[in-house]
Amino acid sequence: MRTDILQADMAHSLPWLAALLTAAALSTATAAPPPAAEGVPAPSNVRGREYPKIHPDLSVTFRATAPNAKTVAVAARAADSGMNGNTPFVMKRLDDKGTWEVTTTPLRPGFHYYDLIVDGTKVNDPSSETYFGWNQQTSGLEVPDPALDFYSVKNVPHGDVRVIRYKSSVTGQTRQSFVYTPPGYDTSGNTRYPVLYLQHGSGENETSWTWQGKANLIMDNLLAGKKVQPMLIAMDWGYGTKPGQPNPGGRGNEAFPDVVIHDLIPAIDAKFRTRKDRHSRAIAGLSMGGGQAMNIGLTNLDKFASVASLSGAVRNFDSKTSFGGALADAKSANAKLDLLWIGCGKQDGLYKAATTVHESLAASKVEHVWFEGEGSHEWQVWRKHLYDLAPRLFKSKK
Amino acid sequence: MRTDILQADMAHSLPWLAALLTAAALSTATAAPPPAAEGVPAPSNVRGREYPKIHPDLSVTFRATAPNAKTVAVAARAADSGMNGNTPFVMKRLDDKGTWEVTTTPLRPGFHYYDLIVDGTKVNDPSSETYFGWNQQTSGLEVPDPALDFYSVKNVPHGDVRVIRYKSSVTGQTRQSFVYTPPGYDTSGNTRYPVLYLQHGSGENETSWTWQGKANLIMDNLLAGKKVQPMLIAMDWGYGTKPGQPNPGGRGNEAFPDVVIHDLIPAIDAKFRTRKDRHSRAIAGLSMGGGQAMNIGLTNLDKFASVASLSGAVRNFDSKTSFGGALADAKSANAKLDLLWIGCGKQDGLYKAATTVHESLAASKVEHVWFEGEGSHEWQVWRKHLYDLAPRLFKSKK
Repeated sequence: MRTDILQADMAHSLPWLAALLTAAALSTATAAPPPAAEGVPAPSNVRGREYPKIHPDLSVTFRATAPNAKTVAVAARAADSGMNGNTPFVMKRLDDKGTWEVTTTPLRPGFHYYDLIVDGTKVNDPSSETYFGWNQQTSGLEVPDPALDFYSVKNVPHGDVRVIRYKSSVTGQTRQSFVYTPPGYDTSGNTRYPVLYLQHGSGENETSWTWQGKANLIMDNLLAGKKVQPMLIAMDWGYGTKPGQPNPGGRGNEAFPDVVIHDLIPAIDAKFRTRKDRHSRAIAGLSMGGGQAMNIGLTNLDKFASVASLSGAVRNFDSKTSFGGALADAKSANAKLDLLWIGCGKQDGLYKAATTVHESLAASKVEHVWFEGEGSHEWQVWRKHLYDLAPRLFKSKK
Repeated sequence: MRTDILQADMAHSLPWLAALLTAAALSTATAAPPPAAEGVPAPSNVRGREYPKIHPDLSVTFRATAPNAKTVAVAARAADSGMNGNTPFVMKRLDDKGTWEVTTTPLRPGFHYYDLIVDGTKVNDPSSETYFGWNQQTSGLEVPDPALDFYSVKNVPHGDVRVIRYKSSVTGQTRQSFVYTPPGYDTSGNTRYPVLYLQHGSGENETSWTWQGKANLIMDNLLAGKKVQPMLIAMDWGYGTKPGQPNPGGRGNEAFPDVVIHDLIPAIDAKFRTRKDRHSRAIAGLSMGGGQAMNIGLTNLDKFASVASLSGAVRNFDSKTSFGGALADAKSANAKLDLLWIGCGKQDGLYKAATTVHESLAASKVEHVWFEGEGSHEWQVWRKHLYDLAPRLFKSKK
């Protein structure tokens, strides 16, 4: 068990941000007032857009156009976001054309879902890309971390993310998944790969681990550093119901475990050059997906030997009884599991639940990795989780 | 040259729409008043959302929530859209919670970019998926065509769309492309494939031919019907500038031809099992991308033997002088080109320009396909274009 969160080798500055910070330092050193607009476009901006603009102190200037509005503000979606929670930053009107602007306090690095709030109605910011979260396309703000670049696009070999479709016998529908294949997959002949099944949180979808999570870039960079086994990552949509099952708002997920076992795994194994033994299959997920991973993994130990819960929605956990008692016998569980990984940010509302899982496992002597660190219920934490988790997978067969 | 637009074999009804229309007919037959809300969610809705709802007559009910708004409307982006141009449909407030609703007149089948307009400000509809167009993420409405299903998800083998990255020596940046690989690509051993380079229009990007255009589904269905040669389709972002070149709004595209020739083609040929001869390479694009395809293709006939302009921005065309005089000598051009394909919708603002291209080519006896049909500057036309174009590609080598 470890509680340290990040390796020293991750602490490379992003070159552009380093340059910016240097420029800012010089500017301060010469006692000239810093230009008000100094900064760089956020990486989450629509290509070519100037705003949102990130300043050297990680404050951010947003602009909006709303000629007829009486009030405009910008606010993160999440009450625990690193963008001042979800307390709005009130924008000021700059001109007759209806340009509004605000510069925030310094923000926490990472990814923040946010809205413009125009006369009380939450809307997307046309200057930013949208990301599927909160059960809709929502604007996202990426605040680079000056100390981390493990999820940046670097000049290393890049794997692909494939958009695939497969037929589900369980739901009767054709479903869409995103699948990461590592660099070299196409040219590695008959080489077969282990598979990590990796799930998103509530209100997100199969695209989220790629666009918000940067799972593909994290893997590209880990692979370039020879820190991880080459693997496929299958990212599915964590919802699904059988015909006739209640499906309120289209978000029923009762059939998702059956979809994974009966449709998704066979589809991935049929389509890709996978290793099909349980030691070569892992399941992980964040939040709702963490609960799903624990449930699907631990009740199907003939299929999976590694299970991970990232800030998982796993409540009232008891190692003796939860998940059909799969972990009740520690000796048996330890023999079966190559890896059981539990992580959570200390400022996460689910931290107490995660701690309960960890402590119950520890009391029962069920071997596991416990990964806690700073952060709330947010993508920056889950990126760090994947960066710790992936290198532990598929290293050896018991 | 042909002017008929669609094959009889495309006129299959969508099963769900057929059922709906039957239900509506029965409902009318028994003289019961049809339920006001009868209809089905648009295929472009966020999964599980009830609205926008498509009615049997292809009128559409939109709903929005805006408690503090004085006026709410819905309008297509394009002045020539099949959603009443861009004339707003004014919504009515239904209740104290700020629910607004409007039912449109019957809409033209196809894909329409649209906005909610809240007190005069254009915003995304949280109930619909967004699509990159108009240089931002914009809400999209898909109105199914009862007579066409060639771009629907069917129970046929599906190819993949791969999100790839490649390094550009021209721009100095790492760029992202979407690449369609046909079903069976992974299991076809050493088989090599021809490549269609397929470009989007102004304000769109590398994702547009997949999400708006359904290029992958069109190919899946054509391949299942054995109507087309298996091919890769490389879809790039049609912008790019060299370091130091002016790049207003991030939308400079002066360097894009160099990117295609010096970076993209080598990257695709290195990564995929492609055929590298000119007869196995085609370039096509819509609108701005049509102009780019004509320019890049016709001035690089050592690389391409097939060129297509879909509602292309090709103005003041003269077969004797345009594109460096590549077509000035008809006999030579006809010998070099396997296919020159020009298409446009009759209600498109570029129809006159396209007609000029066709007539100038015809007068000079440059062999080409001229494809005109009903429709404006819209994705439904470009889907039909691809459905006609793709089967003509890579059939024989001169």
